[in-house]
Amino acid sequence: MDSKRDVVIVGGSTAGFICALTIKRYNKDVRVTVVRRERKALITCGIPYIFGTLLDVNKDLLPDKLLVEGGIDLLIDEVKSIDRSEKAVILSSGRRISYDKLVLTTGSIPVKPPIPGMDLENVFFARKDAEYLQQLLTTLERAKDVVVIGGGFVGVEFAEQFRRRGLNVTIVEMLPHCLQLNFDEEYCVMAEEKLRSLGVHVITNERVEEIIGSGGKVEEVKLASGGRLKADVVLVAVGVRPDATLAKEAQLKIGEMGGVWVNEYMQTSDEDIFAAGDCAEKFSFFTGKPVNLRLASIAAREAKIVAANLSGINVKNPGTIGCFATMIDDLGLGVAGLTEKAARDAGFNVLTGIATTTDKHPGTMPGAKTLKVKLIFDRSTKTIIGGEVAGGPTTAELANIISTMIEKSMTVEEVTFFQYGTHPALTASPRTHPIAYAAEDALSKL
Amino acid sequence: MDSKRDVVIVGGSTAGFICALTIKRYNKDVRVTVVRRERKALITCGIPYIFGTLLDVNKDLLPDKLLVEGGIDLLIDEVKSIDRSEKAVILSSGRRISYDKLVLTTGSIPVKPPIPGMDLENVFFARKDAEYLQQLLTTLERAKDVVVIGGGFVGVEFAEQFRRRGLNVTIVEMLPHCLQLNFDEEYCVMAEEKLRSLGVHVITNERVEEIIGSGGKVEEVKLASGGRLKADVVLVAVGVRPDATLAKEAQLKIGEMGGVWVNEYMQTSDEDIFAAGDCAEKFSFFTGKPVNLRLASIAAREAKIVAANLSGINVKNPGTIGCFATMIDDLGLGVAGLTEKAARDAGFNVLTGIATTTDKHPGTMPGAKTLKVKLIFDRSTKTIIGGEVAGGPTTAELANIISTMIEKSMTVEEVTFFQYGTHPALTASPRTHPIAYAAEDALSKL
Repeated sequence: MDSKRDVVIVGGSTAGFICALTIKRYNKDVRVTVVRRERKALITCGIPYIFGTLLDVNKDLLPDKLLVEGGIDLLIDEVKSIDRSEKAVILSSGRRISYDKLVLTTGSIPVKPPIPGMDLENVFFARKDAEYLQQLLTTLERAKDVVVIGGGFVGVEFAEQFRRRGLNVTIVEMLPHCLQLNFDEEYCVMAEEKLRSLGVHVITNERVEEIIGSGGKVEEVKLASGGRLKADVVLVAVGVRPDATLAKEAQLKIGEMGGVWVNEYMQTSDEDIFAAGDCAEKFSFFTGKPVNLRLASIAAREAKIVAANLSGINVKNPGTIGCFATMIDDLGLGVAGLTEKAARDAGFNVLTGIATTTDKHPGTMPGAKTLKVKLIFDRSTKTIIGGEVAGGPTTAELANIISTMIEKSMTVEEVTFFQYGTHPALTASPRTHPIAYAAEDALSKL
Repeated sequence: MDSKRDVVIVGGSTAGFICALTIKRYNKDVRVTVVRRERKALITCGIPYIFGTLLDVNKDLLPDKLLVEGGIDLLIDEVKSIDRSEKAVILSSGRRISYDKLVLTTGSIPVKPPIPGMDLENVFFARKDAEYLQQLLTTLERAKDVVVIGGGFVGVEFAEQFRRRGLNVTIVEMLPHCLQLNFDEEYCVMAEEKLRSLGVHVITNERVEEIIGSGGKVEEVKLASGGRLKADVVLVAVGVRPDATLAKEAQLKIGEMGGVWVNEYMQTSDEDIFAAGDCAEKFSFFTGKPVNLRLASIAAREAKIVAANLSGINVKNPGTIGCFATMIDDLGLGVAGLTEKAARDAGFNVLTGIATTTDKHPGTMPGAKTLKVKLIFDRSTKTIIGGEVAGGPTTAELANIISTMIEKSMTVEEVTFFQYGTHPALTASPRTHPIAYAAEDALSKL
């Protein structure tokens, strides 16, 4: 049975969900079908928060009723292959659906490191699968000792949430610091200090050699240095890799980072097939080179760019800046663009500026928290290329200001004198708005 | 006695204080003298918060020790006149100080409306004078009924703070709504609803005819419609006018709005005299015409521009956008640039976009608050010219993102697809970041 559809979207996590809804926003008449494997789809960024704050997988679901109300067809099924010559997808159920335009939002798969014991019971991954996560939630009820392998932002968020319910939590990170791929050292140290103050054990510069079980269930984690950690549950969070299987089988071009190659319109090597989100290759805003950044916010934006391009609004992706934030208890950490280290590694002649202030003014206002902002400029062009924030509730939006400035290639003078508003309960003082003030520090060093 | 100084700053409130410190940041060798009338200077934006949250004038003082530690000479004295031909100022004490460059930061004076009874005891103004404000604080201890004349943001902030300590507070506003000069009607209504929910009486479309006293002290406020309000204390907050007395006497050019005229380098009609802050004329970023905006954040930025220009860093002021925020209990309200009404009044062909979302995601995260963002675009150039925000702790920084976008003349497409980060505890979802999402609404209407 052949049913003619205008747009078929493969995958229904962040990118697929948003792409479908956004197409309908621009044009109600386009027929949109989402083919999704999972009966229930999750709000990706919320996953760690299921395990301490929300305590219910159902509180973190994408609201499918928006799809239904939007007139989008949601098929719970799996696309087995793409017939590019006939412009159709073939589903597990045997059904065949034609498309005018196809969008691949097949997401990513957690990396499974080559460590013995990975298949033991109670070894979990941050998989975007509601039933699987429910199983982790249930298992945690009987757990006492938990080991998190990987101190990236997913590992750190899980660890903080596990600790919130009183578990004995240890993070094991290979690199010298947690969050080291995302932040400069001084911010990583702040994160580690906060984790330790909460009672999370943080072990860095350390590899897991083996996960040891008994009766098929995990019992211990053996470290390369010889130590052993008791573990009722292990969470493995060492990164994700793009799920480009379907694209590969359809002989679409694959990028260096293993994602589906796309041009600046998010179009694959087949002009009728687009890709967005974790499955799509990303290119750096700064260098144009492939980068390994996979975030829901990037997926969302790419999905919106695809939706626009499919709706006659031509939009180019200028490359991925990478902007995100996390929260460890009351400590917010945000970043946009390049860290100082990444900028130096990429060969930039770096100029930095730092501001430390409070997020209310006067500092005597109740609830005032310390804000620390570091900005990174390219000394040769004087433009902003990165920024890091440590603070409270405003952390992420401060990172978003920095990201906006990066996208518009603002100079150190433009950042220093940008026009901002202030309020005692909401911001630093007019003198020390941390972004302007950090830029002023950089400007004074020129 | 003639002591040679490099830079003399007249006035030590926001602009004077910041200008002095910023000059020293760029060049420690410049000799800077601040001549200030007040023994103690206040953090201007914090003034309303003395009366409910801080309950102590001393918790809202500018930290003079920063001036001292910065090697700045602070003279508590008054400049009586400027001798432009000799490049010197003459102080009340009789002292005469020479300058290479003079900076006027003489601030503003609360407007005293022509209403009988203004001089009665316990009728107060939002004067930047620590001893005067201490007197208001003491008077409030014995007060029960308070009337605030003027529902602009200063009046609203005072009213909310007075109410916080259990006083019976009424705001009387001439216009149909509180905050009407700063926000579009729907935001004004939110503010009024919040004030009323706190127990503040809000009377709009109403004039005060007379302030009636007994024994020299205020007792009642008589309204034009005939009603009478009991009042132990009246706070008058109907705006400020620039204090340009000294500049006028020195025959400097005065602008249409009554401020000291300045060029884009913040230089007055005398090339050795600069002006910044409330005393200086402001010009619109949008039209280049004089505007009547006086905010500490604007004063701060102007002071920083003066400091840069005096330090060999040439910086032009592109005109005032006007960005600010306020907080009524847990409701944040922020604005940048033109409201929809102001844009229409100025002749723009207006395109708007609206987003309503929550400031955490999923919405089941504890403490999630509603965010409402409205963006205003010029339909002919498709650039962003304004935005309004209602929300929680992130309100002001969201307004600051909008202000940055206005300053860089970002198009509706650029705003829709700007690169932001998200986090469950800190922002709306990747799909509904309110700025991108409101722009998408506008884009879908094009």
